[in-house]
Amino acid sequence: MMNDINNLINSINHFRDERNWRQFHNPKDLAISISIEAAELLEDFQWKSSESALDSNKENIQEEIADVLIYTLMLCSDLELDVEEIIEEKLKKNGEKYPSN
Amino acid sequence: MMNDINNLINSINHFRDERNWRQFHNPKDLAISISIEAAELLEDFQWKSSESALDSNKENIQEEIADVLIYTLMLCSDLELDVEEIIEEKLKKNGEKYPSN
Amino acid sequence: MMNDINNLINSINHFRDERNWRQFHNPKDLAISISIEAAELLEDFQWKSSESALDSNKENIQEEIADVLIYTLMLCSDLELDVEEIIEEKLKKNGEKYPSN
Amino acid sequence: MMNDINNLINSINHFRDERNWRQFHNPKDLAISISIEAAELLEDFQWKSSESALDSNKENIQEEIADVLIYTLMLCSDLELDVEEIIEEKLKKNGEKYPSN
Repeated sequence: MMNDINNLINSINHFRDERNWRQFHNPKDLAISISIEAAELLEDFQWKSSESALDSNKENIQEEIADVLIYTLMLCSDLELDVEEIIEEKLKKNGEKYPSN
Repeated sequence: MMNDINNLINSINHFRDERNWRQFHNPKDLAISISIEAAELLEDFQWKSSESALDSNKENIQEEIADVLIYTLMLCSDLELDVEEIIEEKLKKNGEKYPSN
Repeated sequence: MMNDINNLINSINHFRDERNWRQFHNPKDLAISISIEAAELLEDFQWKSSESALDSNKENIQEEIADVLIYTLMLCSDLELDVEEIIEEKLKKNGEKYPSN
Repeated sequence: MMNDINNLINSINHFRDERNWRQFHNPKDLAISISIEAAELLEDFQWKSSESALDSNKENIQEEIADVLIYTLMLCSDLELDVEEIIEEKLKKNGEKYPSN
């Protein structure tokens, strides 16, 4: 049923439609945006251990994770992908590649 | 309540625990993994328009999006972040930065 | 005079012109390519310390570094940037931001 | 002989030694830094064509390219890689994979 993920996607789509941004959101630029946000998340860990990154940048780490998810869910929405379905399928495929004991 | 996202996170955690992989999953390396998967998604659009990328690579695009989500949800789980909450907070913050008309 | 960097750029341009690839090499897709190659380099360090990455992946690390440089020098060439000049300028600017003692 | 690339590497090493930064510069974090700078370069092209990106962000594009090169040359220096040699070898390898007509 995926109500909750659909609620999130609705919030995200509402946000961009209020700003009339959907016109810019072609899939290629959304893929670019996901890479950029992923690098901003990684920047919080640059020159640091996980522990010291979390000590000093916890709030920003949380925000950058949210940005990665926002753009990725936008792309799922635009491509009409069912989030639960694509994750379960990928876990199944990974499971065939890396069988558990 | 976030039942469905929690179900997804449970599937993901079950997958890695079956393989005893959680020991490798420190937050810094998970952030690295998100960047790597984001770049693999971007590779499907390299030298192509959005349209021709989707025509030729739709299935792989779907799989790379799933990989980005899997690692990002793992990191949320390990940092005990509530996915719905961090996204709603970030949308609110972005809304203050970019007010709608 | 930058003879040696110019020699390298000449080799790179010769390589792509032999394959008639320059038509695909717009600056935006070259920037995408640099990010993709940088992530492939990073993948050699995923789940590993620097030491164990170098022990197991030294040759591939060298190749991915070369790919990052190849695409970045292509972009310099296409934008008619003088490599030595832009690096010396950036070091000067960084030096103003982070003065040494 | 590679005088000019060596000159550049000397400038870069001088810059970091004046600031006592070499202690932080393990290969894994340098690879992270290359990915971060590559994403900052990519950000100049986000939501834009190559042309409009160059019209509006030319100076910043130049600076981000310099940052990619600075970190990549640092990593070459620390791993004692000969820049000219690794590029020529990679072009040769790519040439075998993609023969010209």
